[in-house]
Amino acid sequence: MSRTECRRESGQMLKSMRTSPSMEFHGRLSAQLCSPTELSSAKTFWTPRTTPCSGVTWDPIKELSANPNPSSAFVVIDGTVNRLYGSQVTRYFEARKVIYKILPLPTTEENKSMELVTAILEAVHQFGLDRRSEPIIAIGGGVCLDVVGLAASLYRRRTPYIRVPTTLLAYVDASVGAKTGVNFAGGKNKLGSYVPPAATFLDCAFFQTLPQRQISNGLAEMLKMALMKHRGLFRLLEANGKELLFAKMQPLESSESSEQEDAASAARRIAIETMLEELAPNLWEDDLDRLVDFGHLISPELEMRVLPTLLHGEAVNIDMSFMVYVAHTKDS
Amino acid sequence: MSRTECRRESGQMLKSMRTSPSMEFHGRLSAQLCSPTELSSAKTFWTPRTTPCSGVTWDPIKELSANPNPSSAFVVIDGTVNRLYGSQVTRYFEARKVIYKILPLPTTEENKSMELVTAILEAVHQFGLDRRSEPIIAIGGGVCLDVVGLAASLYRRRTPYIRVPTTLLAYVDASVGAKTGVNFAGGKNKLGSYVPPAATFLDCAFFQTLPQRQISNGLAEMLKMALMKHRGLFRLLEANGKELLFAKMQPLESSESSEQEDAASAARRIAIETMLEELAPNLWEDDLDRLVDFGHLISPELEMRVLPTLLHGEAVNIDMSFMVYVAHTKDS
Repeated sequence: MSRTECRRESGQMLKSMRTSPSMEFHGRLSAQLCSPTELSSAKTFWTPRTTPCSGVTWDPIKELSANPNPSSAFVVIDGTVNRLYGSQVTRYFEARKVIYKILPLPTTEENKSMELVTAILEAVHQFGLDRRSEPIIAIGGGVCLDVVGLAASLYRRRTPYIRVPTTLLAYVDASVGAKTGVNFAGGKNKLGSYVPPAATFLDCAFFQTLPQRQISNGLAEMLKMALMKHRGLFRLLEANGKELLFAKMQPLESSESSEQEDAASAARRIAIETMLEELAPNLWEDDLDRLVDFGHLISPELEMRVLPTLLHGEAVNIDMSFMVYVAHTKDS
Repeated sequence: MSRTECRRESGQMLKSMRTSPSMEFHGRLSAQLCSPTELSSAKTFWTPRTTPCSGVTWDPIKELSANPNPSSAFVVIDGTVNRLYGSQVTRYFEARKVIYKILPLPTTEENKSMELVTAILEAVHQFGLDRRSEPIIAIGGGVCLDVVGLAASLYRRRTPYIRVPTTLLAYVDASVGAKTGVNFAGGKNKLGSYVPPAATFLDCAFFQTLPQRQISNGLAEMLKMALMKHRGLFRLLEANGKELLFAKMQPLESSESSEQEDAASAARRIAIETMLEELAPNLWEDDLDRLVDFGHLISPELEMRVLPTLLHGEAVNIDMSFMVYVAHTKDS
């Protein structure tokens, strides 16, 4: 298919797509879609809300503002994200008059260990939280969300937590599902738990400050979902890939009416939807034969040992290319 | 009620009791009752089997013996239990020709920490296990079962584990349910998870080598269940308490026919059954208003800070007495 044909077809597809107001997946994961906006106005977050097994749904931010007595919020934020957005986060909590503690941490792959989990737990314990109603909030990339998720799942055997992904990769990958984890004894994510977040807040405005390599990194995971699950997403990426990369996945101006969803928003939405569709019926991984694991056979070794400078999405991309090549040559 | 009346009534009750071959509790916990025997003949364990949420049921010991290829078993055993029963455990695995590793650890309340969990995890990682089919086996008291349970729930996000309680307290308390945990920052069981064991093997023969204080310790938790849930158990304990204590909860000779269940076996069975009944519908503690928490209001502080020489059951007993006194004086 030529690039022009691709564009035409994805244009048609965009026309037919409507953002559904709410989706239910097997009663375990649910998603509510709103329009994206900044972190400082919480009510309009684009929010695929995940609810724990018990089926309880709640909106902690709403709860915080509705509560006449000051509530508490414990926030773990990646160090870099804190330098860029820390003041906005502070303003958000100041405006709501909640007692808060913001803990900036260097949440890099090298630091993704039980030591970081322990550092969070010590600070959480010192701060004090109501383990049923006051969630721990994680703002950062995948490592930050994974580490905070594990700390929360351990603290008093399960404290709710909220994921606020700030990278495209975390947005489409670590944002949903139940996995938490840290590296251990040289193995990637060897320790962890299956505990879904109470909620995930998705805000693509964060991507504006990401380096372009980080956008490519996220696009690689989106390509995985496209290849395994969604021809439409593949065509969207094929037709608009470069444009999406340069625009850092921010909403693109559309040649059609303003009501129509733009390519970047559609691509983000479909990536999340297909991921939810895939994860929800198999949240505890009783079935290990998972489509989302395409690209994850040799990539853990690649990024942990062979070439640690690789980003996760890059390693997954190499893995996918290699496996496609192997499958192709095996058939011929 | 006089002691003689008590004895008569509990005798009547024993007559009417029949050991049910299998019980299902809300599809989450199930119990299979067999006759008790020694660790070295696995098939006749008295086994309240707990199954994970997914509903998978399996018998690892049976699997091990049925598997034509040698399988692996990783065993964590309390240091004292190892001195007393280590050779029997070794014989059991030798006879089945499985590759095994026995890790004796000092699983005391003082050592109940993440450091002990890490020590287990490092050894498990070095040994290598199939995370879906090869459970980690814990043999010891409550601390051992709690710590190994947490290590197993963390390793590769959930590795099955088996509980083999060796104290009366662990037998009636930590043996069933989903709780794992360690102490943290001076707080009792501040870190942990809700992950039920794949199976629990109950063998009262272990109690023969327990000091009498440890039997009293377990009887205190049984008394709690009796007070909260089961008049029959209360009467059994009231009528036969001293005898049960001196006989270390071993099967007592009955004046009735040999088919009738003796007082010790009945008391052990009812304590487990009432505990299962109470825990099964509320396995993740969505409801914090739990009958089994009677005696657990001031006891954590008592045993952690005020008088660390107290055993858990002793602290629970003091708590229960105090609360009964408070309730009584409040009414009058």
